Amino acid sequence: MTLKISVLGASGSIGRAALSLALSFSDLLEVTALAAHSNLAILNEQIRLFKPALVSVSTDELRRELASLLADLPRSLQPELVFGESGLISAAIDSGAQMVVSAVVGAAGLKPTWAAVNSHLKVALANKESLVLAGDLIMGKALGTLSPIDSEHSAIFQALGGRLRVPELKKIILTASGGPFRGFSRKDLESVTRQMALKHPTWSMGPKITVDSATMMNKGLEIIEAHHLFGLSYDQIEVLVHPLSLIHSMAQFHDGSILAQLGPADMRLAIAYALSYPERWPIVERAERLRAKSYKEELDHKKKPEGAVKDLSDYQALSSIPDLSFEPPDLHAFPAMALAQAAGRAGGLAPSILNGANEEAAAAFLDQKLSFIGISEVVGECLERLHSDERLESIDQALEADQRAKALAKQLIAKRF
Amino acid sequence: MTLKISVLGASGSIGRAALSLALSFSDLLEVTALAAHSNLAILNEQIRLFKPALVSVSTDELRRELASLLADLPRSLQPELVFGESGLISAAIDSGAQMVVSAVVGAAGLKPTWAAVNSHLKVALANKESLVLAGDLIMGKALGTLSPIDSEHSAIFQALGGRLRVPELKKIILTASGGPFRGFSRKDLESVTRQMALKHPTWSMGPKITVDSATMMNKGLEIIEAHHLFGLSYDQIEVLVHPLSLIHSMAQFHDGSILAQLGPADMRLAIAYALSYPERWPIVERAERLRAKSYKEELDHKKKPEGAVKDLSDYQALSSIPDLSFEPPDLHAFPAMALAQAAGRAGGLAPSILNGANEEAAAAFLDQKLSFIGISEVVGECLERLHSDERLESIDQALEADQRAKALAKQLIAKRF
Repeated sequence: MTLKISVLGASGSIGRAALSLALSFSDLLEVTALAAHSNLAILNEQIRLFKPALVSVSTDELRRELASLLADLPRSLQPELVFGESGLISAAIDSGAQMVVSAVVGAAGLKPTWAAVNSHLKVALANKESLVLAGDLIMGKALGTLSPIDSEHSAIFQALGGRLRVPELKKIILTASGGPFRGFSRKDLESVTRQMALKHPTWSMGPKITVDSATMMNKGLEIIEAHHLFGLSYDQIEVLVHPLSLIHSMAQFHDGSILAQLGPADMRLAIAYALSYPERWPIVERAERLRAKSYKEELDHKKKPEGAVKDLSDYQALSSIPDLSFEPPDLHAFPAMALAQAAGRAGGLAPSILNGANEEAAAAFLDQKLSFIGISEVVGECLERLHSDERLESIDQALEADQRAKALAKQLIAKRF
Repeated sequence: MTLKISVLGASGSIGRAALSLALSFSDLLEVTALAAHSNLAILNEQIRLFKPALVSVSTDELRRELASLLADLPRSLQPELVFGESGLISAAIDSGAQMVVSAVVGAAGLKPTWAAVNSHLKVALANKESLVLAGDLIMGKALGTLSPIDSEHSAIFQALGGRLRVPELKKIILTASGGPFRGFSRKDLESVTRQMALKHPTWSMGPKITVDSATMMNKGLEIIEAHHLFGLSYDQIEVLVHPLSLIHSMAQFHDGSILAQLGPADMRLAIAYALSYPERWPIVERAERLRAKSYKEELDHKKKPEGAVKDLSDYQALSSIPDLSFEPPDLHAFPAMALAQAAGRAGGLAPSILNGANEEAAAAFLDQKLSFIGISEVVGECLERLHSDERLESIDQALEADQRAKALAKQLIAKRF
């Protein structure tokens, strides 16, 4: 019995890693739909490899371009091509998939995730914005069908045996690598560049999330995500900087016991668990196969190949596990995490505003139109100026707040530039 | 609904810790039987506190002495008093207990454990010798009813969600504090004393197990115990020295993921989990009550009070978790662990011989009749001279081998003294 999956965000880092698993576990996984923003070269290859029934891209023009790229395929292998927001939703729910890998970047991931949840499909969630913007609405419907892909949340999910809500859970500790600027003072951060921010010490990820890691906004968004996933108050969520990123997070129970999950910094581990929980697939045993056939490697010529899923035994012997060290996060130099905590506690539309402003500000930084410390300043100002006591009652309301925040952030950034 | 428990080894370190829990969780636990070797002062107090129906001591003389100590009790509170091996078995199975806390020290724990298993009672096992001597026989009958109390095995049991056999389990890493002589060379060990061996850096335990920790024989016995409990080959069991004893052990799955259990060095945590699994009792929330009423504290005036169950938050904040470091065990200086691995791999009667010889040798060391390095030398010689290819088919056979080993060890020790 194969599990039919739809992969949203197929050309991104998580999407490609998920498809690399689908290649290695073709006996367990069948890909019925793919959606990508605009990377037609990757999509073209993926369609030929996985033969999905449905494929979505962001615009009608790209759809037509993709159709001509696929013209040589026999009619039986031609997928249905759709586009835009409705196309993305269709890729989530109309291909016969049993599980949606929701790995679109940003607030754009909310609508298709919401559609999948409402269609009672299982969702393996990498799009943390879905929970940041509308966590209460989503968790109200998806408690038994959602599994997290973020490595930190996967760590907690694993420590809880593949469950999201455990009455004995007292507290979680999200670990953070500290990013490329760990130890930098606020003054040091004034002069850091795009290039410096994109060099993450331990994880290879897309550019937006890498910048979020550098500002520690990513950890802030993860706090909000964890609040919703595990039903914890913000006081029950701590963050600990652990530069080696070997411990991915820890769960503490009301008897004082802590379970920590450790593993290699390879997203395929967390993705596989999100697909297979509470069981685990033998991804290390298929490591050679992954090494040989890694889809990510095949397509991603710019980066060095990641090769096989690393086992901790790659540290020659387990006896050479390096020392694990921990330190508190520096919220003075990295105020973004504190902003996210405050927005999470405020609830309502505040997390949507935070996230929208950050998407705009992080993009401007990547575009070299905003300084690094400007990111959290812009986010902070948007939160202050767009403050409202409105309760969150619909997905559209969250997306409107997101748009308002993006518009204001754009203005603030233009003024500074 | 209370759980009725029988505590064998009630006056020892584990027994008292279990009874301290029974005091704090009197709404959940009811003590129906107690067995102790000879400490009548402690037993007298325990009988008055817990009102068991049945109590066993080691000899008829002690039984009569205890009866006179209890003479002032009203007849309805007078427990049935029994003695010797049959008394110990009776304390396990005849008091109406649903679960037996098997915490007798040494090979003497095997018969009552075997009786409990054969009576289909649940067994919370601290007596590792039961598995060392007769693991195959016991696990053949107790797979669904046994829970480990040893902190390392409890850590694995917790990582497996309260299960002993998980098909995805690939390997376990038992952590070891390294004991009081970590870093000592074989030469350094020639002159260490009883007093030095009894100063364990992280755990407060009985004298026999503390000496076993110093020789690392304890870790060797734990390897054999883990082999039986979790159904792992000896190649799947590694040992890592982790001086802080914060990580109690780790389980690695076939997807490369590792779950590590961390916690304070307090046996009440592991005992409580062995009683409550897969649920967890709020032992931290009752910490104040434990602090006030700790039975161990009341009776154990010689030692400093252990106070409340320590939470990791006792490290001021979680952000001050100290660095965790690891190193390989030094099997040259500490050959006992390697002897135990070899005996485990040989199987049959070898583990019984190892354990019997070690019990005798450790006792002689505590008696100052054998040097520290003499312990593993005696054990090694007994293993060599009593080697047999006999298969283990009965409990009596294991106990006979234990006796043979003890007799030979006694001779070897006398010759050296």
